[in-house]
Formats: sequence, C-alpha cells, structure tokens
Amino acid sequence: MTQTINIDGDTLLARLRTLGDIGRNDEGVLTRLAASDTEKQGRDQFVVWLKDAGLEVRADRIGNIFGIWNVGSDIAPLMMGSHIDSVINAGIFDGCYGVLSALSVIEAMKAAGVQPDRPVIVAAFTNEEGVRYAPDMMGSLVYAGGLGTDEALAIEGIDGTLLGEELARIGYAGSMEPGAIVPSAFIEAHVEQGPVLEAEGKLMGAVANLQGISWQKVTIKGVANHAGTTPTRLRTDAGLAAARVITFLREIVGNSDSVATVGTIRFGPNAINVIPDFAEFTVDLRDPDEATLQSREAALAKFLADLEKNDGVTIETERLARFEPVIFDENIVRMIEEGAAARQLSCRRMTSGAGHDAQMMARICPAAMIFVPSRDGISHNPLEYTEDASLIAGAQVLLDTACKIVAKS
Amino acid sequence: MTQTINIDGDTLLARLRTLGDIGRNDEGVLTRLAASDTEKQGRDQFVVWLKDAGLEVRADRIGNIFGIWNVGSDIAPLMMGSHIDSVINAGIFDGCYGVLSALSVIEAMKAAGVQPDRPVIVAAFTNEEGVRYAPDMMGSLVYAGGLGTDEALAIEGIDGTLLGEELARIGYAGSMEPGAIVPSAFIEAHVEQGPVLEAEGKLMGAVANLQGISWQKVTIKGVANHAGTTPTRLRTDAGLAAARVITFLREIVGNSDSVATVGTIRFGPNAINVIPDFAEFTVDLRDPDEATLQSREAALAKFLADLEKNDGVTIETERLARFEPVIFDENIVRMIEEGAAARQLSCRRMTSGAGHDAQMMARICPAAMIFVPSRDGISHNPLEYTEDASLIAGAQVLLDTACKIVAKS
Repeated sequence: MTQTINIDGDTLLARLRTLGDIGRNDEGVLTRLAASDTEKQGRDQFVVWLKDAGLEVRADRIGNIFGIWNVGSDIAPLMMGSHIDSVINAGIFDGCYGVLSALSVIEAMKAAGVQPDRPVIVAAFTNEEGVRYAPDMMGSLVYAGGLGTDEALAIEGIDGTLLGEELARIGYAGSMEPGAIVPSAFIEAHVEQGPVLEAEGKLMGAVANLQGISWQKVTIKGVANHAGTTPTRLRTDAGLAAARVITFLREIVGNSDSVATVGTIRFGPNAINVIPDFAEFTVDLRDPDEATLQSREAALAKFLADLEKNDGVTIETERLARFEPVIFDENIVRMIEEGAAARQLSCRRMTSGAGHDAQMMARICPAAMIFVPSRDGISHNPLEYTEDASLIAGAQVLLDTACKIVAKS
Repeated sequence: MTQTINIDGDTLLARLRTLGDIGRNDEGVLTRLAASDTEKQGRDQFVVWLKDAGLEVRADRIGNIFGIWNVGSDIAPLMMGSHIDSVINAGIFDGCYGVLSALSVIEAMKAAGVQPDRPVIVAAFTNEEGVRYAPDMMGSLVYAGGLGTDEALAIEGIDGTLLGEELARIGYAGSMEPGAIVPSAFIEAHVEQGPVLEAEGKLMGAVANLQGISWQKVTIKGVANHAGTTPTRLRTDAGLAAARVITFLREIVGNSDSVATVGTIRFGPNAINVIPDFAEFTVDLRDPDEATLQSREAALAKFLADLEKNDGVTIETERLARFEPVIFDENIVRMIEEGAAARQLSCRRMTSGAGHDAQMMARICPAAMIFVPSRDGISHNPLEYTEDASLIAGAQVLLDTACKIVAKS
C-alpha cells in the first residue's frame, strides 16, 4: 500500500517558501520569535492551511497549535510536527519542515483515501528556539508535563514581556490543557543541523536517540607575573592550565560517540607579557549514553583536581545545563529505516546532537525523528539549505511510516 | 679600600620616597609618564640633588639628564643610572633606584675623598617605559645610536603629543648630542621585577645577560559548526589548535632557560555551543641565547605547519617584536660578584627577563646590571617592594664596583 501514496512535493516546497517569507524585515532578514507579531502571521498562515485541509484546529494554553484529523476512533492519535518559531536571522527549514511535512502527510493520506485506525494530528509547538523566552523546547516541555503551564506563561522574555500576555495578545492562548491528548506515537521530521548526512552522501537519517548534554563553566585562577622575568618553574599559569583541559577533552572523546567543545574562553589580565592569573571557559560535553556522559564528566573532574594538585592553580566549576540522553522508540525508528529502504532512499541510523520537540514528547509516548541533510551542516542561519529532493524524500518516508502506524490491522 | 667606604643609606631611602611621591594624584596613584608635567617635577627634583652634589648637569637633545663629576681626566667616564619615568599606577623603585643609587655612589666617593681616574656620571634616560611614546628604552636607544634623534623627537604619543615638543615644553630639550659622551663602562642597578632572588633567598643578582625576546601574534582559522551535531572527525576546531600550541610551547621550553607565555587569547564566534572558527593569541618567547631562541621559533613554526596539515586549520603569524639577547661585560659582572662576596652579601649570577637601559648602553660600552629582590616578583604596580636592606646592599656593591673601576692603577 505504502508504495502507491505520494507526497505533493510541490505544495510542500511552496509552503516552506511562503512560510519562510513571513517575518522578513526590509533587509530580508527572517525572524519569527515566539509569540511575536511575525510569528502570529506565521501561525495565521499555518491555521489557514490546516483549515483548507479540513482539519479541526485547536490551541492549548501554552499556545501549541494542533490540526486534528479526527477519524472517530478511540485509539490514541498519531501526532507529527515540530515548531514554526525561529531564531533571529534564521533559515527557512528549521521547525517549519517538520510541521509542513506532517501536514502534507495528512493531505496525501486523505487524497489517497487512506482510512486510518486513529486520529492523525499535525502539531506546531510554541517557542522551541527559546530565543525570546527561556528555556527552549518550551511548548513541548509543558505539553509533556516537564514544566507547569502557569509557570511557563509567567516567564519573562528578553524584551521584558510575559509569554502568557503575548500569547493572549496574538490570539493563541488556547483553552485546551497541554497534554490533554496523549498520542500513541510522535514523529518529527527535521533538518539535521549538522554535517553527517551530507558528509556520508545519505538522503536521510533515522534518528534513534538524542545526546545528553552537559554544560559547565570552568574558572581557573593562577598567579600573574612578568612573562620575561618569571622562570617556568615559578609560574602558576591559568592560561596553560586551560589549554591542558582543552586538549585533554579532545583526548577523552577520541573517536567515540562523545563530542566535547570549548567554544568560549577569556584570559586575565590578557596582556602579551603577563602570565595569565585567570582563565574562564565553557565545556560542552555530549554523549547519547548517560553512563558514558557521566564517565566523561568524572574524567574531567579528576583532570581538574589533578591540575590543581600539579599546577598549583585553583579551579571552580559551575553547571550551566544538564540534560540526560533520550532514547527514541525502536519500532518507529525501524519503520523509518524500512520505509526508506523500500523506496530505495539512502538512510543511516543516527544520533541527534541538537535538542528537538520530539525529545520532550518521548517522555509521554513512543517517538522518533527523521533527519534530512543540511548543506555544510549549517543551521540557525540564512544559509541553512536542504535540497528539494531530500525534503520530499524525508516527507515521503514520514508518510510511509505514518501509514504503517495507522494501518488497520 | 672598598671596605671602608659606605653608602648613605638613609639619604638613598629618603630620596626614593621623595621622588616616589612626585606624580601622585588625589587618590595616591603614582604616574610619571615621559615628558609629562609630573615627570618634569621629578626631573627638577633630581636636578636639584645633582647640583647639591656638586655635579655638572647636562641634558641631551632626547632629554637624557646627566650629572657629571668631571675630574679632569681624558679617560672615558664611568656612567651609572637608569630612568625616572614610570608606568601608569606605578611603584616607586623601578628606574628611580638605579638613578638614585648611582647618585649615592658618587656622593659616597666624594665624601670619602676617592680620587677617580676618570669622570663619573649619573644618567637618567628619557622614556624607558614607553607608555606614552613607543618604543620603550627610547632615551638609551637613541643615545646608543639605535634610533635617530630627530626621528625619536617626532614620535607621536598616545595622547597625540610629539615627544620633541613636550621635551621643549618641560624645559628638557637639551643641546648635547645623544651619544656625545661614550662611557668606558655602564652599570645599572634595578629592582628584579621577577621572583627569582626572593624565591632563592638571595640579596642581589649580578646580571650577566638579558634575554632575547620574540613576540608573535598567531591567528588560527577553522570551521564554526554546531557543538552537538558535528562529530569529532568532521571538526576543524581553531580553539583546540590554539590549545595545542599553548601546551606545546610549555613542552619545548621545559626546564631550560627559555620562557614561553601565551598571555592573550580570543575565540570566535565565542559561543558555548559553537566550535570556534577563530582563535587569536600572542606568543612571548624569550631566551638568553640567540641560537636557542631561533631554534624555539623554528620549533613553533614547524608545529604550526604540522597543525595546518593535520588539523585542517589555516594559520597566520605576525611578528610583533624581536630583540636579540644581550651579553653583559664579564669583567664587570665578576666585579659585582666579587664585591658582593667581599661584603658577605648573598648574590647569584642571573639573566634579566625584562628590558633595561643597560641593554642599549651595552651596544656602545661594557655594561652590566645589579638586581635587588622584588617582593612576590611584583613590579609596574603600587605593590612593587624591595626591602631597605636589599636596596642599601645593592647600592653598596654598586659603589664598590665603581670604586674598583675608577681606582688609579
């Protein structure tokens, strides 16, 4: 059966471009921050498409929008989707691709006369990017019960606004309680936001899990002294200690699945001829396995303790963020892989290195993701780009997987 | 003979404190930038002391001040001294100690009825610190012929002034041609500005040479990518490459006489979850031996070339400064060591890691330096401090050395 139904690729691509033009300023810069005027325009356009598709439109109290194909079944629905808010100066695919491909899936099923065994829902979650209101992935987090609705609505944004007031202002403070509909499965299609698929020449990824994330700030204190008059044996060089940590982190991740990044650094007093008495940097450690991630953290802690002992520096660490890895549903992942294989589309099982709404939904139902390649791995940037063929292929496999899940047994 | 003559320690210490109070602002912050109003006050006080000591006072065209005890001999004079300009928010010893101890030496010789075989001169060189006008050690550099007088006078300061105009304004644009008097020997007493003497419990150092200095700016370019979605094998991490350079520099200097310092660093885009595509840092390499210094520079260059090859980064270096090492006069150094030994003052032969006027004077005559300990190695800072006993001991050995040099054979 799945071989006979196809996505309307042209419509999907056209909608991506239409939605991608909503929120551009005079210079062509695209920004649709959560619950802003531009995001309201995007939501309004999305709702028009939902209604055109004959779906029942509902919003919950945190502003998540649902387009529901209610087929009058008691089986918990299949839900697909992502988000339509964006970062500042965004590309057009992040989030929107998952929402619009889900809508295309429902339209294709309807057009082909598929009679699903359960309702099918397309969802657009509020404030996935977290740029205007922290934390990110907020709409799905609230939906999955990880954050209280009222607490989230009271969060103040970077512009001093309250999320709840802004949602009411733009007309998307719905009445439905977040989490009221618990799906039987959730699938999110998304651009990869990384270079793996492109580097390996694959059309798509079946995302089997999502990395745990450990963020720390490390502050090292040494002794500032003259770079010329202080012999090596009398130095307590905070900058050197920082460099030792950075190279150590690369050593411990090696060629494993872990990744370690020191993205920011600062020396004090930061003068060419003064030994640094201060070095502050961030450590971003990720691994798909919680035990491994913990072992990396422990190895770093031991290395820092040894540095204090051997180099004479003093070190403080501050935890900035910590998320456990997420394991997606093996059945859905396998269906995605089989769907791709059936269509002879190259696909690789992979780990997501970025956070997505699906990781929150995985708390309340079986979930998985489909990735399509990002050129040069670029995302959160106007250069974000995925080939049309990849976009259509990913949506096609989303359709095939959805059809398998809702097929009457 | 040398055992019977002694420095007037009280006068030396009192003058250090008097000069150290000239140039303090309302908050007590001491600043005597070259050719400024406050430095003019310091010069004026110095000239009063020179005249009180019965010395002939002359200034040259670059503003160097000389107090000359002209004993009517054709033998080229013995010159001692340093500078009285300061950094911003300075201590009271850097430079002033060398000038005032030299004056105390002449006074002690005169008081004891010493009849030297040649003129004896105390010198205060213009703009040693280089804070207001670059380069530093300018007065002695011009005096030694390393920079043209007119060229130096035309240098614009950080405040937009011209050195020549400022010297004229404060009344210290002399008529004597720099370098007109070539000494037979030059000795500079100075605070160490480093921690070695204190760490070893020594009262003074006989400075036998001065490190060569190599300053470079290193700029590394990599590829910015998402810290979560980019596997280690697909990274080109400019920050990691910078860290590798820093740890490598410590490895190559090891426990040798070389020192290597990375005092400044900057990452771009400098975001916690973005792999740095940019790292810029400075390298301060020093060694007392030119061949060794060159080999360190070559080792660094090879390491950077290998990094480009192995890590995929691109690297540019810019030379910021380069001075060859200076070897001081072995005879004078030995006289200093013998003088200290004769007075049972602990002394160690050592290398200067900082630049001093004596290194410029070494271009035109035999030269050497006497170091006294700096508490915690601190200098260029209000906390700069040397014990009274050390200050007097250093001046005493300067006196003994001077007496040996000018003793009639």
